[in-house]
Amino acid sequence: MIKLLTVFCHRKNFRDKMLHKIINLTVRDVRFPTSLDQHGSDAMHTDPDYSAAYVVLDTDSGLTGFGLTFTLGKGTEIVVCAVEALARLVVGKCLQEIVSDFRGFYRLLTSDSQMRWLGPEKGVIHLATAAVLNAVWDLWARTEGKPLWKLLVDMEPKQLVSCIDFRYITDVLTEEEALGQIKDQMQKEGYPAYTTSCAWLGYPDEQLKQLCTDALKSGWTRFKVKVGADLEDDVRRCRIIRQMIGPDNTLMIDANQRWDVAEAISWVSKLAEFRPLWIEEPTSPDDILGHAAISKALAPLGIGVATGEQCQNRVMFKQFLQASALQFVQIDSCRLGSVNENLAVLLMAHKFNVPVCPHAGGVGLCELVQHLILFDYICVSADLRNRMCEYVDHLHEHFTCPVVIQDAHYMPPKDPGYSCEMLESTVQRHQYPEGNVWKNMKK
Amino acid sequence: MIKLLTVFCHRKNFRDKMLHKIINLTVRDVRFPTSLDQHGSDAMHTDPDYSAAYVVLDTDSGLTGFGLTFTLGKGTEIVVCAVEALARLVVGKCLQEIVSDFRGFYRLLTSDSQMRWLGPEKGVIHLATAAVLNAVWDLWARTEGKPLWKLLVDMEPKQLVSCIDFRYITDVLTEEEALGQIKDQMQKEGYPAYTTSCAWLGYPDEQLKQLCTDALKSGWTRFKVKVGADLEDDVRRCRIIRQMIGPDNTLMIDANQRWDVAEAISWVSKLAEFRPLWIEEPTSPDDILGHAAISKALAPLGIGVATGEQCQNRVMFKQFLQASALQFVQIDSCRLGSVNENLAVLLMAHKFNVPVCPHAGGVGLCELVQHLILFDYICVSADLRNRMCEYVDHLHEHFTCPVVIQDAHYMPPKDPGYSCEMLESTVQRHQYPEGNVWKNMKK
Repeated sequence: MIKLLTVFCHRKNFRDKMLHKIINLTVRDVRFPTSLDQHGSDAMHTDPDYSAAYVVLDTDSGLTGFGLTFTLGKGTEIVVCAVEALARLVVGKCLQEIVSDFRGFYRLLTSDSQMRWLGPEKGVIHLATAAVLNAVWDLWARTEGKPLWKLLVDMEPKQLVSCIDFRYITDVLTEEEALGQIKDQMQKEGYPAYTTSCAWLGYPDEQLKQLCTDALKSGWTRFKVKVGADLEDDVRRCRIIRQMIGPDNTLMIDANQRWDVAEAISWVSKLAEFRPLWIEEPTSPDDILGHAAISKALAPLGIGVATGEQCQNRVMFKQFLQASALQFVQIDSCRLGSVNENLAVLLMAHKFNVPVCPHAGGVGLCELVQHLILFDYICVSADLRNRMCEYVDHLHEHFTCPVVIQDAHYMPPKDPGYSCEMLESTVQRHQYPEGNVWKNMKK
Repeated sequence: MIKLLTVFCHRKNFRDKMLHKIINLTVRDVRFPTSLDQHGSDAMHTDPDYSAAYVVLDTDSGLTGFGLTFTLGKGTEIVVCAVEALARLVVGKCLQEIVSDFRGFYRLLTSDSQMRWLGPEKGVIHLATAAVLNAVWDLWARTEGKPLWKLLVDMEPKQLVSCIDFRYITDVLTEEEALGQIKDQMQKEGYPAYTTSCAWLGYPDEQLKQLCTDALKSGWTRFKVKVGADLEDDVRRCRIIRQMIGPDNTLMIDANQRWDVAEAISWVSKLAEFRPLWIEEPTSPDDILGHAAISKALAPLGIGVATGEQCQNRVMFKQFLQASALQFVQIDSCRLGSVNENLAVLLMAHKFNVPVCPHAGGVGLCELVQHLILFDYICVSADLRNRMCEYVDHLHEHFTCPVVIQDAHYMPPKDPGYSCEMLESTVQRHQYPEGNVWKNMKK
């Protein structure tokens, strides 16, 4: 089947629009100077400029696919360079050829015999893979005229599972087992969200209070605070926010990998009086056994451990689950290998009965991950207990189909695709270093 | 102290040569077309072109530092791009300023608040860090007029330990504990080596036999075979090599991450009759718990598990040791954050009483890692049982101070530095894509 399609694609005079041959890939370095206002600041990332390696796939049918991966400013050009290196594996292929063996295509990108040395499946090369595959999924959803979550929900379970590379996870989840986990039912309602916008580390107390007041008025009931730089500050800030939101609303805290294992346990214990639901990223994202020790120590205090936004791939998530090292799985739409790898993680989390609460924020992450969490709810978990999706209220105005939040819920997107198309005017203004936003910056 | 030095460095008229201010960093993409002869071929890397991102640091004193990180061809330009992004953190600094707070400098490179998102401490950005830091260590050793291993051996334990970033490993090794592990004795003798040159996966049987015969004549007693593509082939090749080397010599096998966990156990069990000392890289380099399961299953057969050449950082090595997931630690001079991070791993391995048998081969890896293993023997382990360093006989002729092997032992290098300076003519001929070797290639 694949070979046949390839032959068709290569026939110069063959122009069946429905094959959607990818004839061009462009990638641009797009940066937003968010560090100027301390948006996104935390204990380890003190001055992030939310940025993206932004990919556009052109096809011979005239349809276009948009994808991105999220970065923090400096170094985005390295991811751009990596996307350019992957382009030769994408351009010239037909969409139908890709999706009819999506597992094979995924492995083509992640296991190139020379390039895999640079990862494998981690860091820059995996971020680049995510950007490319996000664009492919966007293109696929557009050709079907559906938002991505609907494309997933409508898909035969067998086809869905055929998108996953089970290499290295079969000791926990096999293809047959995965098939049995996908439900065929359909439901539609908003998905609960929590907000991180109120309490970035760099915000002064007055701003924090004002933002809490505003958020409560808009219906928010779940709040996250950045901690980890200074214990006294953390106590003060947690006290303020707990007072502002009252005893019944939910509070989470996030240290962004600031501590070693023993330090995490002792620091978080001192914040237990504010009853956080979870401590997020207490230590290195690579330290499975460290997270397990922290989970064990904090369980008697009723505090769970959440991590995942810098968890590099499905093999790491597998072990976090095996070792009971987390109580909340935070998938990321741009660090893992796109929908394909996130499907594997959603199914493993379900098997271990651990709720998924995605990482979002940055630029475009809310737009992307809403599709994954809707799919998870409808077809995998069918459960909202202890489940919610992060929300950050920055930079949505730059997308052609921004997220819709109503009463602290993500409303299901309706437009075809994966919701990560940016306004062309935004891309041009924010392209680094030649866009006007950066050219005019006095730095 | 540091601040003072910075001020000195910035004074335009101040020209104390001994500060060795780094005034320029160049990085080049150097590739060798090794895939043409199937050198280096294994079950996952079928056609490697041994390559390097090659860094040169120029100083105002006229001294030069040389460093590299090893790659497999395609994608080397991404690592070059990452080195260029790191350059701004290096150029303008004085060597004395760097080494008087080497831990701080290490963290400056690995924890830049925007760039760490691209790792942290893994993949492309960590390979680039290794190349830069390898050049800094080379420069340091040259300023002292010593080979790197001697610089390390002569160093006060306190200064040595101050080069290590203990972040995320203090639950296993603290600075105080590390200090106690460093011996002050000195010894000098060759370090035992094993050869991987005889049995790359792509070599035909006759070539394998001939290479074994030659190696035995040269005094080799330890041999490694690539396996994992086809079980029948593996049985045949292992039988040939065991017959060639006899029952008393040592055989190791290497699957280069080809298997899932259960598959690894069953496949290796079928090769047990050939009595391999270890199975190397049976599965994903990220799967600590998987390696632990494999170790446990193979222990009754007398087969150990070795891994490390793609182990991304000290946090992963820490867990491999905690979980008894390996019986041989294979450090790599280019994947970890240079000498600094390898020191942490050597000390942790010593604490867990697990022998270190470094990964080498590629291009420049033997030249680099010989320094680390000499230091380990003299100052940390003082033990040769079950210890040996990989050796591959390719591409040494391109270095100004190539390794010296006598009777299957690495002889201690005598020239100042870290032994990774290439002949300038080599660099120019092999630079990609403009060097003559690549321009003339009919591909």
